[in-house]
Amino acid sequence: MLRFAERTKGAQRSAIRELLKYTEQPDVISFAGGLPDPATFPVEFLAKVAEEEILHNSLKSLQYTTTEGKRPLRQALAQWLSEEGITLTMEEIVITNGSQQGLDLLGRAFLDRGDAVFVSLPTYLGALQAFRAYQPKLVGIPLEEDGMDLSFLRRAIRQARRDGHEPKLIYVVPDFQNPSGITWSLEKRRELLRIAEEENLFIVEDIPYRWLRYKGEPIPTVASLDERHRVIVLLTFSKILAAGLRVGALTGPKEVVDMVVTLKQGADLCGPSLTQRLVVRFLTDYDVRGHIARLCQHYKVKMEAMLAALERYMPEEAEWTRPAGGLFVWARFPSALDTTKMLERALAHKVAYVPGQPFFADGSGQNTMRLSFALASLEEIEEGIKRLGQVVKEELATVALPQRE
Amino acid sequence: MLRFAERTKGAQRSAIRELLKYTEQPDVISFAGGLPDPATFPVEFLAKVAEEEILHNSLKSLQYTTTEGKRPLRQALAQWLSEEGITLTMEEIVITNGSQQGLDLLGRAFLDRGDAVFVSLPTYLGALQAFRAYQPKLVGIPLEEDGMDLSFLRRAIRQARRDGHEPKLIYVVPDFQNPSGITWSLEKRRELLRIAEEENLFIVEDIPYRWLRYKGEPIPTVASLDERHRVIVLLTFSKILAAGLRVGALTGPKEVVDMVVTLKQGADLCGPSLTQRLVVRFLTDYDVRGHIARLCQHYKVKMEAMLAALERYMPEEAEWTRPAGGLFVWARFPSALDTTKMLERALAHKVAYVPGQPFFADGSGQNTMRLSFALASLEEIEEGIKRLGQVVKEELATVALPQRE
Repeated sequence: MLRFAERTKGAQRSAIRELLKYTEQPDVISFAGGLPDPATFPVEFLAKVAEEEILHNSLKSLQYTTTEGKRPLRQALAQWLSEEGITLTMEEIVITNGSQQGLDLLGRAFLDRGDAVFVSLPTYLGALQAFRAYQPKLVGIPLEEDGMDLSFLRRAIRQARRDGHEPKLIYVVPDFQNPSGITWSLEKRRELLRIAEEENLFIVEDIPYRWLRYKGEPIPTVASLDERHRVIVLLTFSKILAAGLRVGALTGPKEVVDMVVTLKQGADLCGPSLTQRLVVRFLTDYDVRGHIARLCQHYKVKMEAMLAALERYMPEEAEWTRPAGGLFVWARFPSALDTTKMLERALAHKVAYVPGQPFFADGSGQNTMRLSFALASLEEIEEGIKRLGQVVKEELATVALPQRE
Repeated sequence: MLRFAERTKGAQRSAIRELLKYTEQPDVISFAGGLPDPATFPVEFLAKVAEEEILHNSLKSLQYTTTEGKRPLRQALAQWLSEEGITLTMEEIVITNGSQQGLDLLGRAFLDRGDAVFVSLPTYLGALQAFRAYQPKLVGIPLEEDGMDLSFLRRAIRQARRDGHEPKLIYVVPDFQNPSGITWSLEKRRELLRIAEEENLFIVEDIPYRWLRYKGEPIPTVASLDERHRVIVLLTFSKILAAGLRVGALTGPKEVVDMVVTLKQGADLCGPSLTQRLVVRFLTDYDVRGHIARLCQHYKVKMEAMLAALERYMPEEAEWTRPAGGLFVWARFPSALDTTKMLERALAHKVAYVPGQPFFADGSGQNTMRLSFALASLEEIEEGIKRLGQVVKEELATVALPQRE
């Protein structure tokens, strides 16, 4: 029949979202989802303010709104971000449908075919999907325990330029990254800014998990260290309020925000008014700090249970991260073990995870996996990791292990 | 600073949305907006079901949903469209953020740079904006009183092909078009399908105003006449439920819907769950037929008031459409009159409209305007059109009129 556009050739559905369909049998203990725990949603508050907003504020909650998003929401967000040391005005904020739409609009604003975007190995899968629609050169940079390998990044930027790929964006998730759980050190955040300045690039700092810290002190956001307006911040209320509202925001230099607003007009005119009003009420009428403290306590217990269970049940060949927050633990196995192939065995043992390979822009990572502790109960974490340990042991016994070094 | 992508060069904000900022002074009677009347929103019903859905169905209303949209919503929509003679399954529907996102995702799915899209002169401005992001060749086809000039369309398709612009989509709003109010005849709908079949093109049938008919019998949708799966339908609940929910849908052949779902994953993962649940409740628990009948009565009185006032106050050089539904009347003046230039005079007389030029893909239409009767009261319509008649008379006196033919 009719030819789809050239850009659709690389388009593929998220392996994870497709996979989730098979992991939803009720007797499977799934660590696969990236969803927050709905037990953390402030249901009664949202029910009350939704009724109020519709009944008593219907013009603001049910009529079209502006493309850039509701003024009180942008004002409240500017205030809220100032507590993170990020100083900006309402004009430097645009409300998006989750941070995913921010990623898409940045691709649309900046990326010509073949332009270079630098991402860590691994990185957030949704960012790869969003950027790929614009046919860039995605350059993977190894991720170390304290952030990207920045010497590698410097070399990669210069190499891309030599190869005719104009460097445009560096995409990072510095706090409790999805999928790895890794948090960048302050030193690397500062160095990243220097690189962006020297190489004339924008940094896209995605902070969906920023407020989910379970131990240690917060490290300043890259944006708060930025004096030259090199940083575009993406944030979302999916993890700290309710995922189904799809309210996120993009902040950055005024000229970037202006362009994103222009492009959003063509993309969807404006976001829903009702969901934006609910977030305004959350930020202005709710005990946000108390709520986040409860969230962190809720997830901390689960994370510790998972880390303890991994210690107990994983064979010594396995390695995994010890995050200080977020929703994910990342595990790595000997290179002969392929976690995509192993998934069948895992499902037979009634446990599920996400294979790591889709998170790698270069197609590596076949021996890694992402484990989410957000949705499972403590009992399920214990039992599920026990099953998974058994799965890994069985799988390791079947694959030819490379010589230990 | 940093270079934006090539595709952003043509990107511009909607002239209308920018203009609206200047027409919002309280003493200006504005016919400029394209907004539905919030008096038509079923506020009490929505307040009640929003509270219920959040309190008693929070997993469905506050957690992420699937990219294609909630299953009960797609089921209810399939049922609802079957009453319009459009037979399809839930798998042939994807929920979008208003129909605007459907337009954007179709551009993304089909349009390579330089591909031809055929639109009427004038056409919905948002469609032009959405498609322009993909740098197509937009080919304007004159709009007659009963639909596009289809001989012109046939020639234009062949000309585009000869010129190396691959024909891809024909975009139409067959019922009470925005901006003209024009409705296509049954004969032209059938002929359009034949052309699409012969020329191997998809028709995009946008039906936001379909249910707002104030007189006469409905004419079958192009999709309901379609046996070869040539028609992609866009619809929205913005005009018949509440604009601020941003719930729309795209239906079409399964392979098209599948591609749109894949692309929507990268664009925003999924739409909000809460707003989708509200539409499910509207379609299943509310007297939708009665609601639409009341809507039509509400707008019919306003439309008739505007048409009568135009008769009373416009000079004989003016022409305008007599729609059978929708929200808009379209007026045309002698070619020497420029409605963009005249807007200053209109604002001085405290009345506003939208100049017609932005609705024309070829930049013509400078002597036309769109008038919405949706938001004004009957008194405002009478007084506003009286003022506008005076503005037009004054403006005509200042411009050199061409010789009458």
